[in-house]
Amino acid sequence: MINVVLIGSGKVAYHLHKAMLGASGVALKQIIARSSQALLDFEASVPTADLNGTIQEADVYLLAVSDRAIAEVARQLPKRDALYVHTSGATDMEALGVHQRKGVLYPLQTFSKERPVDFHSVPLILEAGCDKDLSLLEDLSNALSNNVLKLTPAQRKQLHLAAVFANNFTNHMVALGEEICLNQGVQKELLRPLLRETWAKLETLSAAQAQTGPARRGDRRTLEAHLRWLNDPEKEELYKLISHSIANTYDQEL
Amino acid sequence: MINVVLIGSGKVAYHLHKAMLGASGVALKQIIARSSQALLDFEASVPTADLNGTIQEADVYLLAVSDRAIAEVARQLPKRDALYVHTSGATDMEALGVHQRKGVLYPLQTFSKERPVDFHSVPLILEAGCDKDLSLLEDLSNALSNNVLKLTPAQRKQLHLAAVFANNFTNHMVALGEEICLNQGVQKELLRPLLRETWAKLETLSAAQAQTGPARRGDRRTLEAHLRWLNDPEKEELYKLISHSIANTYDQEL
Repeated sequence: MINVVLIGSGKVAYHLHKAMLGASGVALKQIIARSSQALLDFEASVPTADLNGTIQEADVYLLAVSDRAIAEVARQLPKRDALYVHTSGATDMEALGVHQRKGVLYPLQTFSKERPVDFHSVPLILEAGCDKDLSLLEDLSNALSNNVLKLTPAQRKQLHLAAVFANNFTNHMVALGEEICLNQGVQKELLRPLLRETWAKLETLSAAQAQTGPARRGDRRTLEAHLRWLNDPEKEELYKLISHSIANTYDQEL
Repeated sequence: MINVVLIGSGKVAYHLHKAMLGASGVALKQIIARSSQALLDFEASVPTADLNGTIQEADVYLLAVSDRAIAEVARQLPKRDALYVHTSGATDMEALGVHQRKGVLYPLQTFSKERPVDFHSVPLILEAGCDKDLSLLEDLSNALSNNVLKLTPAQRKQLHLAAVFANNFTNHMVALGEEICLNQGVQKELLRPLLRETWAKLETLSAAQAQTGPARRGDRRTLEAHLRWLNDPEKEELYKLISHSIANTYDQEL
């Protein structure tokens, strides 16, 4: 049985606590949060405390806090012979400070409290300071997900960056498309069949294979028309830069 | 019964011919294409000809050809008392030239020959030179789709532009994310659970509501780290510009 104390009350902490409560071989001993108010959505069966309270013994202290809070929270945790692990994709393991045994468990997913997540499919990217701790972290992670990987710190950071493109930036492109509709008094739901087909294609094709559009086929006439119709300098600049990036990717001249 | 002659052999023509063969009240009389070779995937039951052959009488001549071919193909069609319609989102109705009765039927979707499309859900954006022809075009369109709209030329063009953001540009963001993975020797399939959740969120939230990430929360530290990790001037510029666009959208300071 791996005993875990979870620190944090945000979206990642929420889904980790759910996953741990459903996992065999893992005992979630306690959740540490600044205020019990923040834990209202959490399962009431788990004992809670704040950082000044009595923090229970555990094999793993799992810090699911914001990147900038990791170092400060790690400092406030009692020094014990346990593994201290953060869940950030973009933060060095060393942020965990003076603790001897350190590790990273980065879940590559976007979490919302309102939406259930199939945690078994979430890629968990692992790192640890020594083989023994990596093995402990693997045991914990395998109990939570079927998609566990050991990567280098550089690979983890690049994955975090890739996730920004694949999630945050794709979402913003949809937002800009919806904004263009709304500016024209056209309901944004008109884009929904197109969006659904966009996603569906990516289930069977790589994004490079699925790429279409004026920039992909080097259709300068349509590009120029679009730039005339865009009455927004920021969108114009985005349109140009992304179109050139597409053209460069597929060796098209614009 | 509305008699239609379809001109074209590409992806839009392919799905239009399929939809018309399945529609009641519509008779697809003939398909006109440069070469019969191009029609190998089409239903063999429909008579075909090329532009120099005998073109049958019809109520509607439907030009599903590339934007730049519309004017030239329209010129070559016999002049009859019929409605001449193109299917382009970005082209003026006037490209149909000397024909008296002109219209536009723009299907807002991305088509591939390999993938079946539920044509009934595809938004069809209509335009015509007079009310009588608009009414004919509506009858034809309502037989093909449950999602028929009359819009102004400006609205149609803006929708075409919105579709570039929502489809082509989102797809390219995924492609860049996949490229970052591959450059690190990490399999791009790792992004799949994240992509699925990205799409799933957009089924219930607007893209503006679903937006997350460092730029959305004004997390300058992570943005700066990402820019250090990107060893690619083009991706760096894209990263900066898109992040600033996100920050501007949600009144964040970067």
